[in-house]
Amino acid sequence: MDVEHPRSTVRVGIVNVTGYAGAELARILSRHPNVEISSVSGRSAAGKKLGEVFPHLTHLDLSITAELGNVDFAFSALPHKESSVAIEPLLNAGVKVVDISADFRLKKAVLYQKWYNFSHPAPELLDEATYGLPELYRKSIAKARLVANPGCYPTGAILGLAPLLKADIIDSRIIIDSKSGISGAGRTLSMGTHYCETNEDVSAYALEGHRHLPEIEQELAQLSRGARLEVTFVPHLVPMTRGILTTSYASLNSHAGNVDIKALFRDFYKEEPFVRITDTPPHSKYTWSSNTCLIYPTVDERTNRVIVISTIDNLVKGAAGQAIQNMNIMLGLPETTGLEATAVYP
Amino acid sequence: MDVEHPRSTVRVGIVNVTGYAGAELARILSRHPNVEISSVSGRSAAGKKLGEVFPHLTHLDLSITAELGNVDFAFSALPHKESSVAIEPLLNAGVKVVDISADFRLKKAVLYQKWYNFSHPAPELLDEATYGLPELYRKSIAKARLVANPGCYPTGAILGLAPLLKADIIDSRIIIDSKSGISGAGRTLSMGTHYCETNEDVSAYALEGHRHLPEIEQELAQLSRGARLEVTFVPHLVPMTRGILTTSYASLNSHAGNVDIKALFRDFYKEEPFVRITDTPPHSKYTWSSNTCLIYPTVDERTNRVIVISTIDNLVKGAAGQAIQNMNIMLGLPETTGLEATAVYP
Amino acid sequence: MDVEHPRSTVRVGIVNVTGYAGAELARILSRHPNVEISSVSGRSAAGKKLGEVFPHLTHLDLSITAELGNVDFAFSALPHKESSVAIEPLLNAGVKVVDISADFRLKKAVLYQKWYNFSHPAPELLDEATYGLPELYRKSIAKARLVANPGCYPTGAILGLAPLLKADIIDSRIIIDSKSGISGAGRTLSMGTHYCETNEDVSAYALEGHRHLPEIEQELAQLSRGARLEVTFVPHLVPMTRGILTTSYASLNSHAGNVDIKALFRDFYKEEPFVRITDTPPHSKYTWSSNTCLIYPTVDERTNRVIVISTIDNLVKGAAGQAIQNMNIMLGLPETTGLEATAVYP
Amino acid sequence: MDVEHPRSTVRVGIVNVTGYAGAELARILSRHPNVEISSVSGRSAAGKKLGEVFPHLTHLDLSITAELGNVDFAFSALPHKESSVAIEPLLNAGVKVVDISADFRLKKAVLYQKWYNFSHPAPELLDEATYGLPELYRKSIAKARLVANPGCYPTGAILGLAPLLKADIIDSRIIIDSKSGISGAGRTLSMGTHYCETNEDVSAYALEGHRHLPEIEQELAQLSRGARLEVTFVPHLVPMTRGILTTSYASLNSHAGNVDIKALFRDFYKEEPFVRITDTPPHSKYTWSSNTCLIYPTVDERTNRVIVISTIDNLVKGAAGQAIQNMNIMLGLPETTGLEATAVYP
Repeated sequence: MDVEHPRSTVRVGIVNVTGYAGAELARILSRHPNVEISSVSGRSAAGKKLGEVFPHLTHLDLSITAELGNVDFAFSALPHKESSVAIEPLLNAGVKVVDISADFRLKKAVLYQKWYNFSHPAPELLDEATYGLPELYRKSIAKARLVANPGCYPTGAILGLAPLLKADIIDSRIIIDSKSGISGAGRTLSMGTHYCETNEDVSAYALEGHRHLPEIEQELAQLSRGARLEVTFVPHLVPMTRGILTTSYASLNSHAGNVDIKALFRDFYKEEPFVRITDTPPHSKYTWSSNTCLIYPTVDERTNRVIVISTIDNLVKGAAGQAIQNMNIMLGLPETTGLEATAVYP
Repeated sequence: MDVEHPRSTVRVGIVNVTGYAGAELARILSRHPNVEISSVSGRSAAGKKLGEVFPHLTHLDLSITAELGNVDFAFSALPHKESSVAIEPLLNAGVKVVDISADFRLKKAVLYQKWYNFSHPAPELLDEATYGLPELYRKSIAKARLVANPGCYPTGAILGLAPLLKADIIDSRIIIDSKSGISGAGRTLSMGTHYCETNEDVSAYALEGHRHLPEIEQELAQLSRGARLEVTFVPHLVPMTRGILTTSYASLNSHAGNVDIKALFRDFYKEEPFVRITDTPPHSKYTWSSNTCLIYPTVDERTNRVIVISTIDNLVKGAAGQAIQNMNIMLGLPETTGLEATAVYP
Repeated sequence: MDVEHPRSTVRVGIVNVTGYAGAELARILSRHPNVEISSVSGRSAAGKKLGEVFPHLTHLDLSITAELGNVDFAFSALPHKESSVAIEPLLNAGVKVVDISADFRLKKAVLYQKWYNFSHPAPELLDEATYGLPELYRKSIAKARLVANPGCYPTGAILGLAPLLKADIIDSRIIIDSKSGISGAGRTLSMGTHYCETNEDVSAYALEGHRHLPEIEQELAQLSRGARLEVTFVPHLVPMTRGILTTSYASLNSHAGNVDIKALFRDFYKEEPFVRITDTPPHSKYTWSSNTCLIYPTVDERTNRVIVISTIDNLVKGAAGQAIQNMNIMLGLPETTGLEATAVYP
Repeated sequence: MDVEHPRSTVRVGIVNVTGYAGAELARILSRHPNVEISSVSGRSAAGKKLGEVFPHLTHLDLSITAELGNVDFAFSALPHKESSVAIEPLLNAGVKVVDISADFRLKKAVLYQKWYNFSHPAPELLDEATYGLPELYRKSIAKARLVANPGCYPTGAILGLAPLLKADIIDSRIIIDSKSGISGAGRTLSMGTHYCETNEDVSAYALEGHRHLPEIEQELAQLSRGARLEVTFVPHLVPMTRGILTTSYASLNSHAGNVDIKALFRDFYKEEPFVRITDTPPHSKYTWSSNTCLIYPTVDERTNRVIVISTIDNLVKGAAGQAIQNMNIMLGLPETTGLEATAVYP
C-alpha cells in the first residue's frame, strides 16, 4: 500500500525550459521533496547544459534535449499554439500536464481565433481542461489530467475580485489597473524589454485589449453566475524584474449594506495557504520569489467604491509556483509542498 | 537706450532651495536668459554653498542664506503652512510669488484644516491666489501677484481630464490611478524612500485619501461647471526617480455621441506649447527633465469608457518647470523661455 | 530512540532582528529543519510583532522583545561596540554565539580604537573568537563558542585571493575594487541610501580607508604567512539592492611559472559546498539570495597580472547565510543545512 | 563683416541617427544656436519620421533618409568599419566630419585587424585624423577636417590619468577599473542588455581585452612620451542607463616627491570648461546629461598609490557632447556653445 511503500519520486519534465517560467519551474522543483526533474527540453538550446543557459541552475546538472524523455508529469512552458500541439501526445501517453501557456485557459475555441489569431489545434480538450486557480477550482484540479495554469495578470485580478463577485456586492462595471515587472514580457528580446528603454520609465500598453482580458472576463463571469460584466483592464510596465500589483475598482451595489469588506475577504480565504489579507496596502516586494498573494480590500467611503490591491510574484504565483501548486493537488500531495519559501526581502 | 543699457534682468529668489523642487528651480533658472538667481535661502543649510548640498550646481557659485535677500520675484519651495507664513511679507514688499507648496491651491480655508491639519495663517489670500495651471488659467496668471503652483499629481490628472469635462461627455464617476517616481516624496529621509525598500517594488498608498485629492476635485468641479463629481484617486510609487503616469477612467455619457476623442484633445490643446497629444501610449521617459505633458486619450469600445494616459516629469511640469512657466506669464515673457529643453532619453 | 523521541530542536535567538541582517537570519532560519527561532530582540521595536516591521515575515508570528529570552544559540546583529557588550553575558550563560558585527573580527584591540573609534569592552575575547570564514577556519569554528562573522566585502575579497596567496604566486601589491548593492549600508536612513540619490548612480567611497580594510589585511597576511602586503581597497555603491562583485588585481610573481590559474582555484575549493569556480565571468545576480560565492580567476597575459572576479549576495554569504553556515558547523550539523536554496533569477 | 552679417547657420547632418549616440546628437544640436540639423540618415528606419523612432524628438519634425543630403558638417554614428566607408565621400565633398565610431581613433591600421577584425578601408586617413579629446588635442582639432571622437571608456580614463603621466610621477603599471551604465552597449538588442538580465546585477566583461584598450594604450603612451606602459583595463556593467565611473590605480614613482595631487590636477585642467576637480569623490549622477567630466585624485598613503576617480555621462562627454565640442572647435565657435546644460539631478 502507498502508505507503507511510498511510491518513488515522481519523474517530472519541463517542456521549453529556456524561458523564465521554465527556469523558475526548475528552480522550485529542484527543492521539491517528491519529484525529480528527469527531463527538460528546449529547441535552439537542445544539446546544451541547463547551466549554460541559466548559470544559477548549474548545480542541477541537467542537459537540455530536443524532445522530452519519459516522465510521469509534465509542465509545458511553450508559447501559445505550440503548447497545445506538444501536450496532446503527452496526455495520450498518460502523462498529466500543467500548461503554462494560454492554450487551454479559454473555454471557447473561437476566442483563440479572436485574441490569439490562431485556429485551436485541440478544441476537444478545452472542455476537459481545468482552469488552474486552486482557490476556486481545487476539486476539479485534483481530478484533472490537464490543467491550464492562469495568466499572471488574471491570477492577481481574479483573486482580488472573487470575494466581491461571489458575495454579489459590486455592480457590473469593473476597472482593473495592473502594474507589472518586466519579466512578465519573457526572455525574448524586444525593444520593449531593452534595459535602457524600460529603466526609469512607466508606461501603459495593450489599451486596445490585452490577451489576458478574455481570461479575466471568463472567470469573473463565472464568479458572478453569468452576470454581464463590463471590465476594463489596463496593464502597465514598471521598472522592476518581478512582481505584479493590481488595483481593482468597482462600485458597491445595493446588496452591500454595511458589509465589512476586510472580514468578507478574510473569511473567503481563511483556509487558503497562499492568500493573505493584509492590514495595510501590500508592496509587491513582500511577495518576491514566494507563492504568496497579498490582498488589501478597502472602501472609498466618499464614492461608495471598493478598491482592492492584490499583489503576487508574476513568475511564482503568477506562473511556476502556481503550476507546482496545481501539480501538488493533481498528485495528491500536500498543496504547499516545495512552495514554503518565504519572500526574499529586501 | 535699451540696446546699450539693457534693462537689468529680473532678480529672482528661491525660498528653501534645498529640496528637489528648489534644486530644479535653480537648475532651470540658471539657463533662463531673463533672470538672475540673486538669492537662495535654506534653513539648516544656511551658510553653505549651494554646490555643497547639490554638487551638480557647484558652477552656479551661490551661497545659501537664512533669509531671502532683495529680489523682484520669488519662488517658495517651503513645506505647506510654513510657505504661506513666508510669502505674506514678500507680497507686502511688492514681490510677485509663485508658491510651490499647497498653501494657496485650495479655495476654501476649511479644507486646510481637514486635509493638512492646520489653520490657514493667511486665508484672505486664498481668493486672490491664482491656480497656476497655465493651460486653464493663463489670463488670471498674467495678472496675478500670487500663483499657487499645482501639485504634481493634479497637473497630470487635470490636463488629462479637462477636455472631457469641458465638453461634458463623461459621467460624474471618475477614477484616477497614478504611478509616480520616488522623487515626488521629496528629499526628506523616510523608510518609504529608503533605496532598498523601494527598489524592485510597486505599492499603492494614501488609500484613505491623498492630499492632492481635494485639489483635483476642486479643479475638476470647476471644469464641469459645478457638477457633483465622484472622484477616486489612488497614487502608487514605482521604482524610478522622476516621472508620473496617470491613467484616468470615466464612462462616456449620452452627449458623447460619436465623438472623435483624439481630435477633441488635439483641438483643446492646439495652442499649448507644453501639451502634446500622442498617437501611441506615451512613456513617462519621453518627458524626462522636460516641461512637456504627453496625453493619449482612447475609448474602450467594449465598455464605452474613455481611458486617458497622461504623463509628466513630476519635478518639471509637476513642479519647478511649471513654476517658471507661471513666472514667464506673470512677467510678460514668452511662456516657453528657459523651458525649451528636449527630454533626455534614454 | 531518536525516531520516536526526536531530539528537540535548537532554540535560537537573534539579537537586534530589525536590521537587514536580522531579517535575513529570520527568513533563512525559519526554514532550517534543526532550529526553532525562539526569541528575537530589538530596541525601538520591542513590543511589536516581527511582521509589523517586516511584512514578509508575518507568518513567523514572532514578537520582538527588549531582551533575548532563553536560547541555546544566539546571533548578534547589533552595531559594533554594542554587540560585544551584549555578547559577553550570553557566553557566560553558556550560549554559543555568532556575531555579525565587527567586534570580534580583528585580533588586535588597538585596531578598534583606530578604525572604529572605541575602546574594546571585551579585549580578552579577541583571541578566543574565531574568524568565521568556514573555507579557511572550519576546524576552529567547529570548536568555537564565539565566531566573528566576516564582513561582506572581506568575504568576497578573501575567498577570491586565498588560493593565490596560499600558493605564493602573487606579489605583495594587491588592489581590491568592490561594487556593492545598497543593502550593505543597512536599514538606517541616510542621504547616501535615499532612493533618488542612489538610483541611476555609481560612486566610490571611503577612499581614506574603509573599516573592512584592516580585516582584509589581517586575513590576507595570515594567508601569506605574515608577508607584508600592500593592499588598496576601494568600495563602490551601485544601484541594486543585493550583491557584491569584487575585482582583485595582483601581479604574478616568479613562483607562478606556467600555473593554470583556473585549475589552482578549482583544486583549492574542490570540497567547498558554497564556492564555485566559473568558466565565464559571473554576474552578481547568479548568487541572489543564495549562500554561493562564485569566483572567476584569469590572467591578463599582456601584463602578467592575475584578475579575480568574486561575487556573493552580501546579505547571505556576506552576512546571514554565512552566519548560519557557521552555526551549522558549531552545532555539528551538516554545513549546508537550511542553506540549499538556489539563487533566484532573474 | 561677420559681426553685422552673421554667417548663416551651419547645416549639419547625422549619419545613422537611430542609435543612442545619434539621438543624443539630435537632442543637443537641436538647441545649438549656430547649427541647423538639415539631414539625418538611417538604414532600416529610412522613410520614417525621427519622432517615430524617438518620441522625445517628435518636435524636431525631421525625416530619416537613406542617404545624407547636402550638409556643411557631418557626424557619423555608424558602427565601425561602415563608418569609414561612409566618411570618405563626405570628406571628398569638402564636408568636415566627426566620427563617433572607432574607425579613426587608432593610428596603426594593423590594430583594426587585431582588435576589430577588419581590414581598414581607408588607412591613408588614419594619420590625418585627429583624436578628438579637446583637453589634449585642441589645436589639432581646430585645423582638422576629420576628427575621431574618443570612446566612452577612454575619455574618462585618459582624462583621469593625463596629469599624472604628463608630470611623470607614476610608474608604468596602471589598472583601470570602469563601471558603465547599460546605454554604453547601444540600442541593438542582446541578452546582455535585456532588462531582466541586467537589472539588480553587476558584472565584469571583456576580460580577455576590450576594444577600448588599444585606444587607451595609444593615448597614455603618447602622454608618457612613449614609455612602455602595462595597462590592465576591466569594464563592468552596472544597472543604470547612463554614466561611467572609472577608478584608476597606479603607484607613485620616485619623481612624485611630496606632490600635491589635487593641486596638480587643478592646475592641469584650470582652463578647461568641461573638467572639474572635486573635493569629494564624485557620483556619476552629478554629470547626468551634461558634458562635464568630474575628477577626484587622491593618494593612498599606506601604499603610495594614487587613485583617481573620473566620471562622465557616456552618451554626452563620452559620445555626442564631446563630438559637438569638437565641432565647435573645428568651426571656430566658442567651445561650450550648446553644451552649457547643467546635469539633471536627481
